[in-house]
Amino acid sequence: MEKVRDIVREGKRVAKEDPRRVVHSFKVGLVLSLVSSFYYYQPLYDSFGVNAMWAVMTVVVVFEFSVGATLGKGLNRVGATLFAGALGIGAHHLASLSGPTGEPILLAVFVFIQAALSTFVRFFPRVKARYDYSLLIFILTFALISVSGFREEQVLVLTHKRISTVIMGGLSCVLISIFVCPVWAGQDLHSLLASNVEKLSFFLLDFGDKYCETVKDGDTKEVDKRKNDFDNYKSVLNSKSNEESLANFAKWEPGHGQFRFRHPWKQYLSIGGLIRQCAYRIDTLNSYLNADIQVSINIRKKLEEPLRRMSLESGKALKEMSVSLTKMIKPSSSDLHVHNAQSACKSLTSLLHSGILKDVEPQELISILTATSLLIDIINLTEKILESLHELASAARFKDEIEPPIFAKKPNSRSIVCGWATKGQDDHVVTIVKDDCYNDNKSEKDNRSNQVLIHEKHEDCLHEKHEDDDAHVHSSCDSCGHTSLRVIVECR
Amino acid sequence: MEKVRDIVREGKRVAKEDPRRVVHSFKVGLVLSLVSSFYYYQPLYDSFGVNAMWAVMTVVVVFEFSVGATLGKGLNRVGATLFAGALGIGAHHLASLSGPTGEPILLAVFVFIQAALSTFVRFFPRVKARYDYSLLIFILTFALISVSGFREEQVLVLTHKRISTVIMGGLSCVLISIFVCPVWAGQDLHSLLASNVEKLSFFLLDFGDKYCETVKDGDTKEVDKRKNDFDNYKSVLNSKSNEESLANFAKWEPGHGQFRFRHPWKQYLSIGGLIRQCAYRIDTLNSYLNADIQVSINIRKKLEEPLRRMSLESGKALKEMSVSLTKMIKPSSSDLHVHNAQSACKSLTSLLHSGILKDVEPQELISILTATSLLIDIINLTEKILESLHELASAARFKDEIEPPIFAKKPNSRSIVCGWATKGQDDHVVTIVKDDCYNDNKSEKDNRSNQVLIHEKHEDCLHEKHEDDDAHVHSSCDSCGHTSLRVIVECR
Repeated sequence: MEKVRDIVREGKRVAKEDPRRVVHSFKVGLVLSLVSSFYYYQPLYDSFGVNAMWAVMTVVVVFEFSVGATLGKGLNRVGATLFAGALGIGAHHLASLSGPTGEPILLAVFVFIQAALSTFVRFFPRVKARYDYSLLIFILTFALISVSGFREEQVLVLTHKRISTVIMGGLSCVLISIFVCPVWAGQDLHSLLASNVEKLSFFLLDFGDKYCETVKDGDTKEVDKRKNDFDNYKSVLNSKSNEESLANFAKWEPGHGQFRFRHPWKQYLSIGGLIRQCAYRIDTLNSYLNADIQVSINIRKKLEEPLRRMSLESGKALKEMSVSLTKMIKPSSSDLHVHNAQSACKSLTSLLHSGILKDVEPQELISILTATSLLIDIINLTEKILESLHELASAARFKDEIEPPIFAKKPNSRSIVCGWATKGQDDHVVTIVKDDCYNDNKSEKDNRSNQVLIHEKHEDCLHEKHEDDDAHVHSSCDSCGHTSLRVIVECR
Repeated sequence: MEKVRDIVREGKRVAKEDPRRVVHSFKVGLVLSLVSSFYYYQPLYDSFGVNAMWAVMTVVVVFEFSVGATLGKGLNRVGATLFAGALGIGAHHLASLSGPTGEPILLAVFVFIQAALSTFVRFFPRVKARYDYSLLIFILTFALISVSGFREEQVLVLTHKRISTVIMGGLSCVLISIFVCPVWAGQDLHSLLASNVEKLSFFLLDFGDKYCETVKDGDTKEVDKRKNDFDNYKSVLNSKSNEESLANFAKWEPGHGQFRFRHPWKQYLSIGGLIRQCAYRIDTLNSYLNADIQVSINIRKKLEEPLRRMSLESGKALKEMSVSLTKMIKPSSSDLHVHNAQSACKSLTSLLHSGILKDVEPQELISILTATSLLIDIINLTEKILESLHELASAARFKDEIEPPIFAKKPNSRSIVCGWATKGQDDHVVTIVKDDCYNDNKSEKDNRSNQVLIHEKHEDCLHEKHEDDDAHVHSSCDSCGHTSLRVIVECR
């Protein structure tokens, strides 16, 4: 009884995790009942007979969770059945020429050669990735047609019936999977990438606080809680195989929603690789949170400001990237956050130059400098991910919309770059950036930090001006091919 | 023409990479030709008729590369066919009670419920890992039997024929895969783990030399060469899914060679996880070899000795572990190397305590201390891997044989712990360890470093004595359950 309850609980969890699974189960049941009507409905049964079972078999084997997988398997199955059917008939004809004694021997030889060769080709990595199922069906159909052809005289009729039932089964799977609550592998890959970026951003947004906060040595509960909070990013470490199979499925899918037919899925894999590299660094960084040798609070306090800003800004950059991926708009404010993170790196380096860590114990020095170095590494990787995302955005024609960066929503949070963006005339964009990077607890200086960014478009070329109350002006011109707004802000 | 040549070249590469693939292809061809004889051989055909095709189909779908996968699929298929066959007959009987109008409707409802429920259960992670194929066959067989039963009156005869052909097909696959050049998934998992450990060891064995050697800034060729040398470990980063599927297959396999039926395959996965963690650190460390900010040679020279020894000794420990995994003997000398690596860490820390890096630029300091810290991390992980390996060794009853450690083979190489081991009488083992950890360029001290380890066995308890020319003696007693030799050497 307890076991049944466990199973029901597990079922609820699985359904809640992705409700599309329930819908998919219903879809499979529906198509299978539909295809079974081949048996019930007399006219259909009269024309296909027992061959109707091939339709049932095709549905069971071909109907996968996503459209791409179903379409890939369906096309593989139909193509392989056609090709193997033709070859099987040829083999049967050739064997029949050699007389009643030679026929079975020759057929056995054909089956052997075909099966051995196809099985070997299945080991080719490129074939395995896309046409593995094709070859399986090829071996199967060839063996069945050429051998059963040995018995039945009407090989052509048999082949014709078998192929048409397979096509009917495959077609009903494909149609139902496309038109009834479709699950697109491409969309899933896209969402997976966005959620992976978001997971990393969560770690980084919290890391500064966690690293610099006070933790009592004996407080094991606190340590346990920390560990759990941060374990979220760990699923990113092993996402490669999942991404690759989704990309393979996505290649089979027709255009849907914002994804055109030849959407640059390859670029997703390269961004995924960079994200994983960043996750490896984060995994290493995480081990310093739970290390045996804890850096004393005094020393952490010395580097707190830049360390916090480095992790916070890179976290924000990643968060914005995740949002821009989700909404399929060009990542605009991420550049700003990456730049902020880099300027925090510079201020950290100058702090170190001032000899702030002169009297620190070597072991603590190693620990804190490694955390620093990993953060620098993560910021560099964030920049690379951003570049890769810019490439994706232009290849996949992401929208150019300028929206309020998400961090504008909490104007009172600490150390946050707030921005409001309005789209003016066609060739004129004004962005006001209120930068309170150095204004924590210095509210009297709030006015000074209001900055105005003016973007002007002249003859396909984007000029960028940057003014603040000190009348400091920045101007830069992006190359004409590159239309993303690169906002350059210096925190002085 | 060029394309054909490409394909042939790829074929040669695939065959060379793993010659068992060619053998497997021949095996598949063989079994398929054998099973086709159901059609040629009149007595067999008379008893099974068209149902003989189920044997062909079973062979094509069930025959996998490894014994475990084949056995798993075969058992899944036979079990699911039996179960679904029984249920299908039941459903058919129930439906036939409801009269000619109700029968097709009721059957359609049964098929729908069964297909939807089974499809949903396939999403359960634990079911997906081991019984996915079972459920697929379950859906298929139930639909085919219950529906085709609607036409043919002799459902029982049909079911009997179908099940016996499936069993025959499955049995021939299993027998051929076990008795003709078997490919054991368990053996593959074992070898994969050993080779992964070895890949990491290669990186570490070379890292010290690469890190401390002189590289000219402009020498891009040199930088490229380095990158390629070290890329070997990268396959370890994404080995998780491969390891998991091999472990799943291995669970189906009967005992073979040194692997008993309930070999602790789970322990392999946990060791694999630690190996990957170590690989993440190595990936991070690797980025410091190719970083923009190169630490000047003068500074590297200061820490060269301990850094070199740290990476070399952890590399050796891993190498020995890989050898002991391959030979399935208990890892004995790895403890020594881990200990050496840890003592190198200590001497590095005392070097740092002496203020050797006082006047170093902050950026260079960050870089070199991070490399140091990552190496310390790697050594700690090496120790964890070793512990996990000890657990595996005792759970899987690895042999206790003491063999010459592999590094004894190159007695003249620099900074190497050489050991010769001889098995004396049953209860007496003498190990002579020549330790030249501190004797680089100090050949006049060679004599001093000769150390003798004497292991004596008294009443199931291992006593260990440690003598060197200073007549320093160490004695330790391992707990009786734990029989591995823990060699403790102190470098003074």
